[in-house]
Amino acid sequence: MEDRPNVAAAWCAQVITLFPDVFPGVLGASLTGKALDQGLWQLDPIDLRIFGEGKHRKVDDTPAGGGAGLVLRPDIVGKAITFAQKRRRLPLVYLSPRGTPFRQETAARWAAGPGVCLIAGRFEGLDQRVLDHFDIEEVSLGDFVMTGGEIAAQAMIDATVRLLPGVLGNAASTEEESFSAGLLEHPQYTRPAVWEGRSIPDVLTSGDHGAIAAWRRAEAERLTRLRRPDLLEGET
Amino acid sequence: MEDRPNVAAAWCAQVITLFPDVFPGVLGASLTGKALDQGLWQLDPIDLRIFGEGKHRKVDDTPAGGGAGLVLRPDIVGKAITFAQKRRRLPLVYLSPRGTPFRQETAARWAAGPGVCLIAGRFEGLDQRVLDHFDIEEVSLGDFVMTGGEIAAQAMIDATVRLLPGVLGNAASTEEESFSAGLLEHPQYTRPAVWEGRSIPDVLTSGDHGAIAAWRRAEAERLTRLRRPDLLEGET
Repeated sequence: MEDRPNVAAAWCAQVITLFPDVFPGVLGASLTGKALDQGLWQLDPIDLRIFGEGKHRKVDDTPAGGGAGLVLRPDIVGKAITFAQKRRRLPLVYLSPRGTPFRQETAARWAAGPGVCLIAGRFEGLDQRVLDHFDIEEVSLGDFVMTGGEIAAQAMIDATVRLLPGVLGNAASTEEESFSAGLLEHPQYTRPAVWEGRSIPDVLTSGDHGAIAAWRRAEAERLTRLRRPDLLEGET
Repeated sequence: MEDRPNVAAAWCAQVITLFPDVFPGVLGASLTGKALDQGLWQLDPIDLRIFGEGKHRKVDDTPAGGGAGLVLRPDIVGKAITFAQKRRRLPLVYLSPRGTPFRQETAARWAAGPGVCLIAGRFEGLDQRVLDHFDIEEVSLGDFVMTGGEIAAQAMIDATVRLLPGVLGNAASTEEESFSAGLLEHPQYTRPAVWEGRSIPDVLTSGDHGAIAAWRRAEAERLTRLRRPDLLEGET
């Protein structure tokens, strides 16, 4: 982890974590891995343990006021953040179930910027003073609790990186899919024509492109109304 | 991947995937990894490619009706599911942005059962007939799109496994945390007492356990009202 300020560089995901070795993990496979190899984005895991104190490089301590678990110390995390910001000054994000839910719009916003510095918590989380001092945005993967922020970081990086130019082979893929139109995606079918007595809907093999587009739109609307009426609430 | 029906076994996560090597990934680290080593749960990645056809073990084909990308073939995925169900008959779940959002209650429900068989899609998804034929539940990690279902699988497995008996060292940790009370978690503080001119709130160092509990409850309610009023809507 040498100190190298890099101004005109590719989109970058810094991750401050106690488990730097789990990166790139899944992100090293498939499309995101290929794009990483091609330099279309950068991954910079920063080992929080290095900033710990004493022989055991302690990073946490018991919660003030009592309670179970351990809290990441503000001075230790603060040092890691300062180090990360010197490498590259990126927006700071703390992954926490208390944060704003991550959505497709969040991915699009991040993809339009220079990158993000994601702070992955463990244990009972981060001392509140670090969040206040650096004015860190809190983002949540969803309404559930995980053992740490590392998987959440990978999920958000994946969703963001696939929106970067050149990462997906076919640009149409990101335009037609779920949420881009505020709807869930229509059902998909492929060969064989009949499987287990089930056929592909006739319209899809009709060659009538107008009818196919209309069917897909109607199915997307039907599924969204059925499963996620909340997505339609904002519409007129 | 030998054929071994196993009736009275630990909680099991099967994952049908084109990238079996990315497992256990993050799940092999920290608490989930320790619990995996201890046999408190099992992970069974099933390589979809094995069931593919021809020299290149093709698993996908173009979408019926046209459009970008590739769709996973129903016959291929069907074979993988049948293989998985012979190994252990677990509830089938397809990871898809079209599904029901995964929440803490989903993790609790899954943790109370024998395990889950998660199907991780890639490309433009799965042929609809497989979902219909096996009556597969669709679950979504959130309102965003990823390159595949593998990270979503890891997120859901992490959230579920940490609820299994013996996985977390301190049971109190899961009871006090976010969402268990329908509220976001209160702020946490630890040593040092003063950092960057910021002190720990006095009440937390007062030793008055009643006052501490009241402050934490009030902070949790305040944060929830501020950030996630939707969580309070169901209440009276």
